[in-house]
Amino acid sequence: MHQQTLELNPRPRGFHLITTEIIQAIPQIAAFKTGICQVFIQHTSASLTINENADPTVRKDFETYFSKSVPENDPDYVHNDEGPDDMPAHLKAALLGSSVMIPVRNGRLALGMWQGVYLCEHRDHGGRRKLVITVWGE
Amino acid sequence: MHQQTLELNPRPRGFHLITTEIIQAIPQIAAFKTGICQVFIQHTSASLTINENADPTVRKDFETYFSKSVPENDPDYVHNDEGPDDMPAHLKAALLGSSVMIPVRNGRLALGMWQGVYLCEHRDHGGRRKLVITVWGE
Amino acid sequence: MHQQTLELNPRPRGFHLITTEIIQAIPQIAAFKTGICQVFIQHTSASLTINENADPTVRKDFETYFSKSVPENDPDYVHNDEGPDDMPAHLKAALLGSSVMIPVRNGRLALGMWQGVYLCEHRDHGGRRKLVITVWGE
Repeated sequence: MHQQTLELNPRPRGFHLITTEIIQAIPQIAAFKTGICQVFIQHTSASLTINENADPTVRKDFETYFSKSVPENDPDYVHNDEGPDDMPAHLKAALLGSSVMIPVRNGRLALGMWQGVYLCEHRDHGGRRKLVITVWGE
Repeated sequence: MHQQTLELNPRPRGFHLITTEIIQAIPQIAAFKTGICQVFIQHTSASLTINENADPTVRKDFETYFSKSVPENDPDYVHNDEGPDDMPAHLKAALLGSSVMIPVRNGRLALGMWQGVYLCEHRDHGGRRKLVITVWGE
Repeated sequence: MHQQTLELNPRPRGFHLITTEIIQAIPQIAAFKTGICQVFIQHTSASLTINENADPTVRKDFETYFSKSVPENDPDYVHNDEGPDDMPAHLKAALLGSSVMIPVRNGRLALGMWQGVYLCEHRDHGGRRKLVITVWGE
């Protein structure tokens, strides 16, 4: 089992491909013939998901959909100390999830041809984001 | 650790119980007294979740809810090269997730009495879907 | 690898922090320098997620959002034998997920400073909820 942290530079609000950054951070994966890689985000207003790695308009439409589906300034929100993007960020993070789990095969992530890992930044100014990456197997 | 692929025959758009197919594909699970089974889908327009394994109307209502909640033909979508079901399929896949993780106990999946694994087919014509199943433990 | 069950006392409908209960249930985690902890819920009308561990208004707003976003009494639902909270509970459980996976580091859950584990109780009278907790690593 190999475990490490990875700190991502600040990204603007939206959905960002980080597959390459993850792969470059864990050369140790080459030693695993069969395994699993977990990427975990230590925050509650950003999240991780797996989706299309090609056309950037998919990531644009993700931001459009989630910002419409989890509205800001809902008068029913009680928690809004940190601004209108605060509570929606928590809700989007729960909908998308705090980790992704990817099989490892022959020393590489066994992603499908069109799959990539997204950092989902739900805050207007989220800052640096800390990940914990764990790989285990044989 | 045991790892293998499983290719599912095409299903119509909607939610489909695949627990039996998974169990039949991994007789090796019998050797694990304690463990975890991950089922991962290598696609971005279909997903996996765990829900009620009994009444088929639950699966029907899943399709109704998700098709209403993630509408087709939203004029704000930019990515729609492959038809009106394209972008909504990506969004539904992210909401539901690309893998399920099930504890293994005494050589069997430790699902609750009412739990089953769903293939969530979000495309009108999704075709065959590839899964990677990994089991590890003792 | 360590695996055990944990039965939670009934909670009212809503979102409840259970991090302390989980930690107290698994003193064995202290033996793992590096690892992963999975918490799995054996139900289809309650779920688990990770979110803010501090301000209780976040959990209140979660209930507000999810009850608005997954409405009761939608005339399109077919499955409603067990009352208006039945089908929405299944849908919310699928949106939030049946398990959380947390890295383990130096014998402790490697949660971020603001992260806690939520039991998401989607039924009006959900009763006791059974979890399976599995920890593995070195």
